Amino acid sequence: MEDYFEMVKVPFPTRVEGITMVIDTGLDFQNARNFIDSIKGCVNQLCIKLGWTTWAHMNPKVVKNKIQLYLENEFTVCSGGTSLEIAFVRNKVEEFYEYIKKLGLTTVELSAGNTDMKNEEKAKLIQMAKKKGFIVWTEVGKKDPIEDKKLKHIRGQLVVHDLEAGADKVIIEARLSGKNIGIFNKEGDVIEDELHEIVSTVENAGYSIDDVIFEAPQKSQQAYLIKRFGPTVNLGNIMPGDLVALLTLRTGSRGDTFGIGWLPEELG
Amino acid sequence: MEDYFEMVKVPFPTRVEGITMVIDTGLDFQNARNFIDSIKGCVNQLCIKLGWTTWAHMNPKVVKNKIQLYLENEFTVCSGGTSLEIAFVRNKVEEFYEYIKKLGLTTVELSAGNTDMKNEEKAKLIQMAKKKGFIVWTEVGKKDPIEDKKLKHIRGQLVVHDLEAGADKVIIEARLSGKNIGIFNKEGDVIEDELHEIVSTVENAGYSIDDVIFEAPQKSQQAYLIKRFGPTVNLGNIMPGDLVALLTLRTGSRGDTFGIGWLPEELG
Amino acid sequence: MEDYFEMVKVPFPTRVEGITMVIDTGLDFQNARNFIDSIKGCVNQLCIKLGWTTWAHMNPKVVKNKIQLYLENEFTVCSGGTSLEIAFVRNKVEEFYEYIKKLGLTTVELSAGNTDMKNEEKAKLIQMAKKKGFIVWTEVGKKDPIEDKKLKHIRGQLVVHDLEAGADKVIIEARLSGKNIGIFNKEGDVIEDELHEIVSTVENAGYSIDDVIFEAPQKSQQAYLIKRFGPTVNLGNIMPGDLVALLTLRTGSRGDTFGIGWLPEELG
Repeated sequence: MEDYFEMVKVPFPTRVEGITMVIDTGLDFQNARNFIDSIKGCVNQLCIKLGWTTWAHMNPKVVKNKIQLYLENEFTVCSGGTSLEIAFVRNKVEEFYEYIKKLGLTTVELSAGNTDMKNEEKAKLIQMAKKKGFIVWTEVGKKDPIEDKKLKHIRGQLVVHDLEAGADKVIIEARLSGKNIGIFNKEGDVIEDELHEIVSTVENAGYSIDDVIFEAPQKSQQAYLIKRFGPTVNLGNIMPGDLVALLTLRTGSRGDTFGIGWLPEELG
Repeated sequence: MEDYFEMVKVPFPTRVEGITMVIDTGLDFQNARNFIDSIKGCVNQLCIKLGWTTWAHMNPKVVKNKIQLYLENEFTVCSGGTSLEIAFVRNKVEEFYEYIKKLGLTTVELSAGNTDMKNEEKAKLIQMAKKKGFIVWTEVGKKDPIEDKKLKHIRGQLVVHDLEAGADKVIIEARLSGKNIGIFNKEGDVIEDELHEIVSTVENAGYSIDDVIFEAPQKSQQAYLIKRFGPTVNLGNIMPGDLVALLTLRTGSRGDTFGIGWLPEELG
Repeated sequence: MEDYFEMVKVPFPTRVEGITMVIDTGLDFQNARNFIDSIKGCVNQLCIKLGWTTWAHMNPKVVKNKIQLYLENEFTVCSGGTSLEIAFVRNKVEEFYEYIKKLGLTTVELSAGNTDMKNEEKAKLIQMAKKKGFIVWTEVGKKDPIEDKKLKHIRGQLVVHDLEAGADKVIIEARLSGKNIGIFNKEGDVIEDELHEIVSTVENAGYSIDDVIFEAPQKSQQAYLIKRFGPTVNLGNIMPGDLVALLTLRTGSRGDTFGIGWLPEELG
């Protein structure tokens, strides 16, 4: 409640900017509504990703009503990368774009985590999506840890490639576990030099960390990235039940980030 | 949504056969209803197990209404093994069977995970349950990891014993954690030779893997068993919130099983 | 259902006394209602802690309605320690007490996990809260594992200090993960000698284990403490979805505590 922060004279709004991408892995309609009700007015720039192909395994009526509900509440809704990749393998991407447009989706996650999509092919799909009016979030990373590890020195370049090809943001893959993939090791801790390599490559190419969305499903990962890049860092793969907790991390009002953004360092 | 799979010309139905046993560890009525609403028409052969004795620690009205709801939706409902084992220790199994029959349950989980039930005793309880008209799913395994480990070379024989005694299916115990029990090690990974020993013993006795239900609460375990035995392998101890994700694994449309069942291997 | 236990002649009531402190980390109103509905009449001495500052990042209407609902159902409602600590750092504790009183809260968690609060300061805040009519639960422990480890030989003394200063109960910090903090190691297992040191210090000072609440979010931790101190041990940081499972542990009717409290040892 905002008057709490007023009372304690903590000099930040409870609403902190920065993209928060929540992943919906099969939420029922009522819980989607309950969730929205509980955080109404407390978060900006919320995007709901319909995780991989989960939405295609649910009661179609529920999915349609849920998307409608998200849109009415001014969240952006994004398709999961794997659903696009299946279309890619079947040469049906154009049909896929039309299909999700009809569903009301405004944002596309364009990944190559399961498939052998070449950079030029990805660039073409980015352009196709842009022409159809979508916001395009590409993803860098592989679903398989061994394949993903091979990218460790080129992730930054892949980010730059996608941005130059027209992507609006680039997501660093971490899957739903946040373990043994992307910038996270088997324990889910950040591999600092791999993160550093991405950041410096992106910045050297004239882009910024604001052009990147980090999938960071675990609390320790969210806290690390907030301490490193500030409360407005773009974060993804947040489970709906973890959103309120993430907001407290962003405002420096949970143990892990206590005082970040408002407390003079000597008191922190 | 089925038309998604039609569009991408993926040659499988979204409904994949094979038993899926969801564990209800204390779901409230409304969430049971929301859950059913969200997966209506998307899954066959769904059984809800009322986990251990959880249902005996809840508002009785809620439990009765919930069971009614499950039955109306044509799910089978199964009692948890521990609730039967308490009755066994107190010499009240017959009363227990009558009691759950009155509740509307059609399936019994008959385990010996907590108690020192002999094979002949188990066989007798199987027969008693069959005579009362129940579907009988016995379980092989112990709740305590040390006790359970002692079974490692006889699990297959115990499965065969129960099938010969009249069990309809036999469940391989993994508890709710899926760690350090049955065919899973401390990290939750499959112990391949222990799995192999079960399978070969069962098959040598003229039964098949379709006679077995694997408790497999973790995604990696579900993916392993689907890759090993196909999309229709019988799986149990699935949390309600993980069911949609499991369906995506069964149809080969999540990273971990991408292409299984529909994509030519050279493209996978 | 109570008649189940009657039938199996298990000689304990399903309602087991002992404080159970559930942590609400951002529950929506409907799920709070569903939760209460499902456990109505099945648990005594239930306290809901509004975890850290989560309630200040939610729709204020939802928070107010939720608190009202908890109070109507005769649960006590407790503020999270971090929300008080922010007020402490800003010299606004008195205002904070008035603020949560207006919200209807009856219990205060008074922690020093994030801040450098001296013992005398803590004693003063305890007294201030008591004068305002609150039940006061202080907490011993630090949010940061390294800082927390420094307390390992003085936790018992800090408990005694707080009790002598007027605290009604003292909570042993374990955070929401239950790992690498307080009496739990990195794997979440109990560090027996650290636990022993707390217990003996507390008892030597004339207090008892009933004056302590153990945060114990993990099942193995709950089972350990129930086996060690009995079914009525005070437990905290229980997630709402884990409450029913905890009740089964308390009544000795789950594998991990099977028979505790009712089964003669030679049969257990």
